Amino acid sequence: MPRLVMKFGGTSVADLERIENAARLVQREVERGYHVIVIVSAMSGKTNELVGWVNQTSHFYDAREYDAVVSSGENVTAGLMSLRLQQMGIDARSWQGWQVPVRTTAAHGAARIEEIGTANLDAKFAGEMQVAVVAGFQGLSPENRITTLGRGGSDTTAVAFAAAFGAERCDIYTDVDGIYTTDPRVASKARKLDKIAYEEMLELASLGAKVLQTRSVELAMRYKVRLQVLSSFEDKPGTLVCDEDEIMESNVVSGVAFQRDEAKMTLLAVEDRPGIAAAIFGPLAEAGINVDMIVQNISEEGHTDMTFSCPTDQVARARKALEQAMADGTVAYENLVTDDNVAKVSIVGIGMRSHAGVAQQMFRALANEGVNIKVITTSEIKVSVLIDRKYLELAVQSLHDAFALDKAG
Amino acid sequence: MPRLVMKFGGTSVADLERIENAARLVQREVERGYHVIVIVSAMSGKTNELVGWVNQTSHFYDAREYDAVVSSGENVTAGLMSLRLQQMGIDARSWQGWQVPVRTTAAHGAARIEEIGTANLDAKFAGEMQVAVVAGFQGLSPENRITTLGRGGSDTTAVAFAAAFGAERCDIYTDVDGIYTTDPRVASKARKLDKIAYEEMLELASLGAKVLQTRSVELAMRYKVRLQVLSSFEDKPGTLVCDEDEIMESNVVSGVAFQRDEAKMTLLAVEDRPGIAAAIFGPLAEAGINVDMIVQNISEEGHTDMTFSCPTDQVARARKALEQAMADGTVAYENLVTDDNVAKVSIVGIGMRSHAGVAQQMFRALANEGVNIKVITTSEIKVSVLIDRKYLELAVQSLHDAFALDKAG
Repeated sequence: MPRLVMKFGGTSVADLERIENAARLVQREVERGYHVIVIVSAMSGKTNELVGWVNQTSHFYDAREYDAVVSSGENVTAGLMSLRLQQMGIDARSWQGWQVPVRTTAAHGAARIEEIGTANLDAKFAGEMQVAVVAGFQGLSPENRITTLGRGGSDTTAVAFAAAFGAERCDIYTDVDGIYTTDPRVASKARKLDKIAYEEMLELASLGAKVLQTRSVELAMRYKVRLQVLSSFEDKPGTLVCDEDEIMESNVVSGVAFQRDEAKMTLLAVEDRPGIAAAIFGPLAEAGINVDMIVQNISEEGHTDMTFSCPTDQVARARKALEQAMADGTVAYENLVTDDNVAKVSIVGIGMRSHAGVAQQMFRALANEGVNIKVITTSEIKVSVLIDRKYLELAVQSLHDAFALDKAG
Repeated sequence: MPRLVMKFGGTSVADLERIENAARLVQREVERGYHVIVIVSAMSGKTNELVGWVNQTSHFYDAREYDAVVSSGENVTAGLMSLRLQQMGIDARSWQGWQVPVRTTAAHGAARIEEIGTANLDAKFAGEMQVAVVAGFQGLSPENRITTLGRGGSDTTAVAFAAAFGAERCDIYTDVDGIYTTDPRVASKARKLDKIAYEEMLELASLGAKVLQTRSVELAMRYKVRLQVLSSFEDKPGTLVCDEDEIMESNVVSGVAFQRDEAKMTLLAVEDRPGIAAAIFGPLAEAGINVDMIVQNISEEGHTDMTFSCPTDQVARARKALEQAMADGTVAYENLVTDDNVAKVSIVGIGMRSHAGVAQQMFRALANEGVNIKVITTSEIKVSVLIDRKYLELAVQSLHDAFALDKAG
């Protein structure tokens, strides 16, 4: 019998009524003939309540105790979901991370799954045809302490189970109905994608379409786990995140992503010498600045200009770190210019690899609307530009039109 | 170093402030030089919330899932208590039942502790001098499922740990400051006892002084664990429940217990034959009736009267069960008379064993107040009577005076 992993996020199991709704979705797949593994999150709000208590109790908290407290939310949902399924006449039982066991590293609060023991669940699939309801987000450290995988970790749990048990698919039930070509609130013509390649999803996720945890997509790509993102509240297919081989026809560009609150910082006339990039970005990393795009202009007379972008609310800290580096003598520059009224817009698509002129097409579309480009970076399947923030909506809409994203490829 | 078990009930850890208060009590014992094992209950209200969810989810619930859900409350408290102790500079860690491990029977919802593994905690006492904060009320079944010990089970957890680790004492912190000679709301002269023998505590607990779970007292008696009941909100000694050898001087009678809502049921002219008691009380047990006192009068002409008491709210069910037994022909009697306006009053004391005339002293004290006695039963350390409910306060007060319970022995 084929196996299926079904993962329900916090809003999908927010109360007893929603747990019942989710259980009916499980029932449907059982009736279709799947061996089902259900991965559940905590009822929404519960994890925040527990985290709040930990923070109020201890300033410098022991991450092992944090994990012991916070993991309890998923255990409650797993038990309740099992009971609900039993009430529907479906054999089911809950599994906590240590019972499976889900073996992880000892990095409490952000542990990585190392191995999932399959013998216990396999026995239930073979003998009793039982639905396994697994508490997501948690595992067991080498010292037999409870670990958690970090926020959004239940997605990662789901993909890891799908890989370990050779599931046909891993369905991620959430409160959105799939992945869109862009944010529908910005471009009304945004269209839900039937399929998207892992690589594209990774670029879109890190660019702001916060539907799936990046790590879970990386894991799915590595183990070729077919991931479906779909709504637990609407009965329709979602978006399948899969290998590009499975996507027969597709647009050259799959989506337009954006980041509204970016800032551009430029160091003018930096002394150009080997190691200068490390000297600049080392202090920024230490200060916890999320540097995104980096552009270095050609050198003139031993000096160059270095531009980078970061979130607007980190500008003050970034400036402080760079001025300190200047004072320490590790970096020399003439001036530091900040523009915190920019936004980033990116087009993403695996089709770019085999199509020339995609970047040019993007630049022309923006030029036609009078949008000035301030910084450009490119990767194999993505072109990103920084523009004035006031043009963000205009840029997204015009790119969506230019690449005909409202029509299926 | 001597070891100490400290158990905090739900009201003693009801919120973060009370957890901090409890942690300060632990700190004091650590500073006195004890190796401390802390046993915690769920924050008050939490277990009821979880039980409510289970009941709303499933009518005929799987007790294994019930246990998996309900045990999470204690895990949260254990983590928070460890964090609070760490915040005070005390090395501490939480232990869930399966981590210790606390091995129990598979009787989910009412499991019995079979063995407590001591190696893991002993290692922490030897090497790191760490406070162990243990989630009470829970254990691990032979199938590696989570079990719970039933309501009030954290007291039993505490006593079992005290026995397993050879603790000098087991302190049960609660919202009352000790065991009283009787209920102070009924007799204002009620006095807190410094010490009470296990046997006396058992009789008092089952008679209504609901401070300690009966099972935990039985366990303490079997393993000679010295139990102290004390308040977590007032800084004064509580009552020590201990072996009678440790109680040098004591009153003949230690306390006056009572049960307000009793009913007396009498089967008149029951056919007197071998097996008739079983024929009567079998159906009552099946109907879930808590039969308390049983008195059988002498037989006359092959017939006898059989009187028993039970809680008032079970009278209707008891009557139905007996009428059914009559209809089935398993029991024959002339009439069934019910008096649901009675109360039970008992005097308890290990001193009775060596003092004659205690019962007589009780009957005279009641007679002096004009209180008529309807039923009498006696055991080695207890005399109980049923009286009209309206005389309950008068009877308790006069017995308290008659045995001079307001003065230490």
